[in-house]
Amino acid sequence: MTEALFRHIDENADSFVERVMKYVSHPSISAHNIGIREVAQMLVDHLGGLGFDAGLVETPGHPFVLGHLKVDPAKPTVLLYGHYDVQPPDPLEAWISPPFEPTIRDGRIWARGIGDNKGQHFAQLLAIETHLKVNGTLPCNITFLLEGEEEIGSPQIADFVRDNRDRLHADLVVTSDGPLHESGKPIITFGVRGVASFDLVAKGAARDVHSGNYGGVVPNPIWTLVQLLATMKDADGNITVEGLTEDVIPATNLEREAIARLPDDAAAVMRDLQLDTMDGPVERPYWDRLMFHPTLTINGLHGGYGGQGSKTVLPNEAIAKCDVRLVEPLTPTHVFERIEAHVAAHAPGVEVVRHNGMLPSKTPLDSPFAAPIIRAIKAARGVDPLLYPTVGGSLPDYVFTKILGKPAFVVPYANADEANHAPNENLEIDLFIAGIKTGAALLDELGRLDLPQKAAE
Amino acid sequence: MTEALFRHIDENADSFVERVMKYVSHPSISAHNIGIREVAQMLVDHLGGLGFDAGLVETPGHPFVLGHLKVDPAKPTVLLYGHYDVQPPDPLEAWISPPFEPTIRDGRIWARGIGDNKGQHFAQLLAIETHLKVNGTLPCNITFLLEGEEEIGSPQIADFVRDNRDRLHADLVVTSDGPLHESGKPIITFGVRGVASFDLVAKGAARDVHSGNYGGVVPNPIWTLVQLLATMKDADGNITVEGLTEDVIPATNLEREAIARLPDDAAAVMRDLQLDTMDGPVERPYWDRLMFHPTLTINGLHGGYGGQGSKTVLPNEAIAKCDVRLVEPLTPTHVFERIEAHVAAHAPGVEVVRHNGMLPSKTPLDSPFAAPIIRAIKAARGVDPLLYPTVGGSLPDYVFTKILGKPAFVVPYANADEANHAPNENLEIDLFIAGIKTGAALLDELGRLDLPQKAAE
Repeated sequence: MTEALFRHIDENADSFVERVMKYVSHPSISAHNIGIREVAQMLVDHLGGLGFDAGLVETPGHPFVLGHLKVDPAKPTVLLYGHYDVQPPDPLEAWISPPFEPTIRDGRIWARGIGDNKGQHFAQLLAIETHLKVNGTLPCNITFLLEGEEEIGSPQIADFVRDNRDRLHADLVVTSDGPLHESGKPIITFGVRGVASFDLVAKGAARDVHSGNYGGVVPNPIWTLVQLLATMKDADGNITVEGLTEDVIPATNLEREAIARLPDDAAAVMRDLQLDTMDGPVERPYWDRLMFHPTLTINGLHGGYGGQGSKTVLPNEAIAKCDVRLVEPLTPTHVFERIEAHVAAHAPGVEVVRHNGMLPSKTPLDSPFAAPIIRAIKAARGVDPLLYPTVGGSLPDYVFTKILGKPAFVVPYANADEANHAPNENLEIDLFIAGIKTGAALLDELGRLDLPQKAAE
Repeated sequence: MTEALFRHIDENADSFVERVMKYVSHPSISAHNIGIREVAQMLVDHLGGLGFDAGLVETPGHPFVLGHLKVDPAKPTVLLYGHYDVQPPDPLEAWISPPFEPTIRDGRIWARGIGDNKGQHFAQLLAIETHLKVNGTLPCNITFLLEGEEEIGSPQIADFVRDNRDRLHADLVVTSDGPLHESGKPIITFGVRGVASFDLVAKGAARDVHSGNYGGVVPNPIWTLVQLLATMKDADGNITVEGLTEDVIPATNLEREAIARLPDDAAAVMRDLQLDTMDGPVERPYWDRLMFHPTLTINGLHGGYGGQGSKTVLPNEAIAKCDVRLVEPLTPTHVFERIEAHVAAHAPGVEVVRHNGMLPSKTPLDSPFAAPIIRAIKAARGVDPLLYPTVGGSLPDYVFTKILGKPAFVVPYANADEANHAPNENLEIDLFIAGIKTGAALLDELGRLDLPQKAAE
């Protein structure tokens, strides 16, 4: 069944590459509100041209693009999520070719957004087009959702999903974003860690003072933060804030089996980052670090003099910016409350400023949709994907798993060195084509799925 | 004897004010090498006009101005030290009147350098002139020394004093710099704390990484510094670096008696700086904090993100800039060695970068020169001075007490709100005149001193 699809994709590869290059030549920088509406409208027109019932959904921020194509109520509906906004291209001078003048070199397309995420959701659009061209119809129903604020932290998506629950009907959600494994192996991600970001703000005297004339008399807010932070994590790297680690749900047997099949990336990461040692606790296995434990990272700490040489100042303010990566069952609210309680107990003068929070998300490894996705990847790439119970980073997958209550999978198409968020973002052309095939095969597999609950509806 | 001197000073007060205003209208900014040589030469000419054998002494930096006037080998020689360089005037827009256009308002002269230190050593020059005008000679011998790099940390003074020991003959050293007590009471300072400044540099991965994708795997240099620093000072504020506090020489009975007579400034400082609490250890008396204990101040700590909102970065470098204020018998070399040993034991990957060091200095409260200085101040100001065994800050007094081996006293003339190092630097005209009188009375008192060692020479 996929043979005709794959042939069509191979025959049209050059034109597909040309078309995606044209698409990413249009900037859509959410942080600077550049080109957002033009590209959003372009996508609505594109979906409309494929027969979707598509439009913009307004939010207090940038609009969502939402389209539906229903072919058969007895078939499953897949929600394909992506985002049409891109990172700012700065620093411009670091680009070998201009970020919005897509160029082919070394078998790759070089352009801002080609990997993250425009090239990847464009591959999904081409997969849909391929089905329509080859078969005249789709094997399953599709809800196509593209966000315009992913690169600025998806501030609207939770409200949007809550408010539009009935327009987001789906049996599963598939996101094609991010990179494949370093080795080029395809992957499926079943979960993400959540995140809770906050500042710790310590104040001292009414103004900076002289470290000699006041040293020993005036409290130092940097010391205040140092002593406070030292109570939040011990020297071995264990988080010591009450309520952040005690109730964490341990890995399931299925998850343990899955990570046992993953390559051990520790050595490669240490080599790449020139590390002699991993972060504490030292005895923790590599994948456990990223999947099954919360972290407390100081993203930045700033106070006082930071120039050349020395300056005998006793500063009057210091700020630590931190994030906690959450695993189940932690929530940002719980984390913020525990941090606030800890700070109140240990350094009552320090202010906690809450920033973004995002719930963790997990789809069970034995979801009935796992098998068809694995088969689709195998059909397109010829190898079995690696299965990640969770990844270390955070994506708003919880809006699908916790608000919509549906299983959510991430199936990335990009090369590991796609340089997303950096200059010289790029996508290997072979992987772009493989992505279109994966998308096409996925729709095919979903169309063949015999869903007991569908039959019963 | 001082009556005629004081009358001359009062009669010439207007012209003295006019002349000091002219003097400070010439910029001499060491940090920017502006006007340094012009002002140095002006001072050589000025001293020459008073009958001094005066000249510039070259150094690898800005030159010293050195002058001698010997009237009687049986009389004591006082070395009057000051500095002719000034702080940069930035930010210019904060000045009510331009920094190098001296202006009188509210009974004060407003100009850069009027307090720190040009107005104060000009008062000494006028005191000398007064003696010469009134009596035709000086009551004692004078070595006049003015530095051109005090505001950039006196990088040459130790070598200069070592190399020119035989040209710096003196029985005592008097520096008029800094402010009087807040209350306007005159003071004599017998000692200063030393200082040793250093950086702690922690490095992590070869580059900044994502806090989600690498959090738990990659060591965080900010955490490294936090955990290291937490081993250097406990939560109560006690320094816990071995060798920094154990051998500190406790206050003498004479010092205890002196500080018992000092006003308790704690409440005023806390009100001024809007503090609820003093730095730890909480039980330590106010003056003990500044005089008899070393401090370990974090002057600045910087690493990672410091902008608005949150950024999920795991940074790869962090720097803490620190200084230790030293009391006897600590030396910068000893402190650097102890810090390096501590860091090697607790965080071997962290680099210690040594910056400036300065030895502490103390002149005994029972020095035979204390009494004549006290009498001179009493004669000029009508009140007894406060006696400070030590002050919290650092001045290179050790070059006089430890290299020359002579007692050294600081007798400030400026108002407490002189705003040295800040915009709108100023000097109360009454205190400028009182300074000239103090200087004149001091020479008078020294001339009457019967020095046993002089008689024996």
